[in-house]
Amino acid sequence: MATSKPMRQQVEEYINALQDTIVGAFEELDPNAPKFRRDSWVRAQGGTGRSCVFAVPPPSNTSSSAPSTTILEKGGVNISIVHGTLPPAAIKQMRADHAGIPDLPAGDGGLPFFAAGLSLVVHPRNPHAPTVHLNYRYFEITRAPAADASSDAQPEVLAWWFGGGSDLTPSYLYEEDAKHFHSTLKTACDAHGAALFPAMKTWCDEYFAIPHRGERRGLGGIFFDDLTDAPHKRLDPSGATAHSSRPSTPESIFALVRQLGDAFVPSYIPILAKRANTAYTPEQRRWQLLRRGRYVEFNLVYDRGTKFGLATPGARIESILMSLPEEARWEYESDMGAAGTEEGRLMEVLRDPKDWA
Amino acid sequence: MATSKPMRQQVEEYINALQDTIVGAFEELDPNAPKFRRDSWVRAQGGTGRSCVFAVPPPSNTSSSAPSTTILEKGGVNISIVHGTLPPAAIKQMRADHAGIPDLPAGDGGLPFFAAGLSLVVHPRNPHAPTVHLNYRYFEITRAPAADASSDAQPEVLAWWFGGGSDLTPSYLYEEDAKHFHSTLKTACDAHGAALFPAMKTWCDEYFAIPHRGERRGLGGIFFDDLTDAPHKRLDPSGATAHSSRPSTPESIFALVRQLGDAFVPSYIPILAKRANTAYTPEQRRWQLLRRGRYVEFNLVYDRGTKFGLATPGARIESILMSLPEEARWEYESDMGAAGTEEGRLMEVLRDPKDWA
Repeated sequence: MATSKPMRQQVEEYINALQDTIVGAFEELDPNAPKFRRDSWVRAQGGTGRSCVFAVPPPSNTSSSAPSTTILEKGGVNISIVHGTLPPAAIKQMRADHAGIPDLPAGDGGLPFFAAGLSLVVHPRNPHAPTVHLNYRYFEITRAPAADASSDAQPEVLAWWFGGGSDLTPSYLYEEDAKHFHSTLKTACDAHGAALFPAMKTWCDEYFAIPHRGERRGLGGIFFDDLTDAPHKRLDPSGATAHSSRPSTPESIFALVRQLGDAFVPSYIPILAKRANTAYTPEQRRWQLLRRGRYVEFNLVYDRGTKFGLATPGARIESILMSLPEEARWEYESDMGAAGTEEGRLMEVLRDPKDWA
Repeated sequence: MATSKPMRQQVEEYINALQDTIVGAFEELDPNAPKFRRDSWVRAQGGTGRSCVFAVPPPSNTSSSAPSTTILEKGGVNISIVHGTLPPAAIKQMRADHAGIPDLPAGDGGLPFFAAGLSLVVHPRNPHAPTVHLNYRYFEITRAPAADASSDAQPEVLAWWFGGGSDLTPSYLYEEDAKHFHSTLKTACDAHGAALFPAMKTWCDEYFAIPHRGERRGLGGIFFDDLTDAPHKRLDPSGATAHSSRPSTPESIFALVRQLGDAFVPSYIPILAKRANTAYTPEQRRWQLLRRGRYVEFNLVYDRGTKFGLATPGARIESILMSLPEEARWEYESDMGAAGTEEGRLMEVLRDPKDWA
């Protein structure tokens, strides 16, 4: 082993450092903008977090009516580290994907869990600059400590997995941006196995779908869940032994996740820097707000994380809904997005996802 | 019987006339605004509808940058009349509330249904003028026609019920408006039984709740469902015989629904006329957009009709999502709505609903 630290501690240290790196990259790109606001919080049921949120004062609080010139309109880079006891019903559900979780005897009170994740959504102001989302998380279920265990003892890990991904949601299609974003993620994946990127790219296209619109939310990227040492339904399609071609130990999967996390800044900041000062029309702003309406539809109707969060007692609603844009728009049978227009070019690839890398 | 027409035909005729009356009242109030746009549509799986939608051209399409001066910002008054075959699973679920629906033998293909409804959401432009919602609907399940039945034969009605309601969602609290709206509905209800309004008012407060915010969507009004000749869990709490004190025949329930539908214009138009030209600040507009964000949260996360519609293949998405406001806003930990402010006065009654009539 490269280190004797428990994985939960390694993950926590990594995402703390990554949060600082990412927030620092945004702040460096727009030095005259207000800094991200840092809020640390404690969950009564067990856990801590730190939200780093970018928001500009609303127009009515400024002396001029000129639009703000910050690169970002709204954004959040959030860490949450929670622990507690998983009820038997939740454990039973998780056993479907994680054979390592024991079948608890009836009457058992559940098992301790630990979850640590970094989650990011950034909505730039300029309609030519894409929205971006990232999430990487680690989940662990441990044996309940013996009554006489010392408080320093490491709990026995019964099951663990990583999940996450990153995806790009533009209002206007710049093929070179799509290629840059996907290629950067592909390079990070390919270092850990050639089959990873294609499988995670397809999974992303499937996950970020808005079925009632017949559209994807955006241009995709990668998405994965339940990545562990056991055979994986989607990532090891040819059976139990195939996962030798992809990372399957805690350390090797964590190395993949670190490389993906480190790839965020080079995957996105150059795109943002290139598009942030593009001239735009009120019509393009209107289209951006219509697309943000679709972002709201996906997040409130379909996103599993959001739905789970809203249904969780004691959840920090402001951190969960930080993903929503500052403004969104809905028009009845909008005339925008027709074939043959720049808006229609985006719609084509949202209806029929392409390979970009 | 007052008429020999089948109830489905009576309902269809009534909601068609009510749609014209309501749209006419809005158009008369703002004669210089664009007319509502009328769209008739046909559902491939069986049914027709007419959407009457108000929308103003977006700012970028006008020669001036001055805000539009129409009273409404967005609104829709929609009729849908659909029929088809209910699958056995849906019938089984409906039997819980409707003992009249027969328990189908296994292998049966389902039963014909008919549903007719009028649905309305209007978002005025002025932050001092409240958003309003109304929905009245009639549902019928019939016996499958015999193979040799003539096409003119009326199908045998196995189960039928009415549902609906109307509620008010302001951004600023004007107690006199809340009293006027609730009192108008109460007067309409009271003519049909004194217990109706209190029960339907409470049901409305419960239905239009946003649990993750600890708020109601608005100031409520009335809400009911499954109103038929059988004992009703909520409206006949004291048992099977208690419904003699409320309408319980098709004709008498339809008379209540007609009186409620007719009460819409007097319940709302005077409020809109009074508030539509109130001077307002950019700060008040900002608060209105934040409240519209909550409207979006309720409709996309909780509203049963919206969720059902989005999950229905072939549903007319543009009509379902016509309820969403033209614009909505989300701020991270907004400073608006604090105790002691005008915005905070609204929040108090959203957290803890009051009796207004």
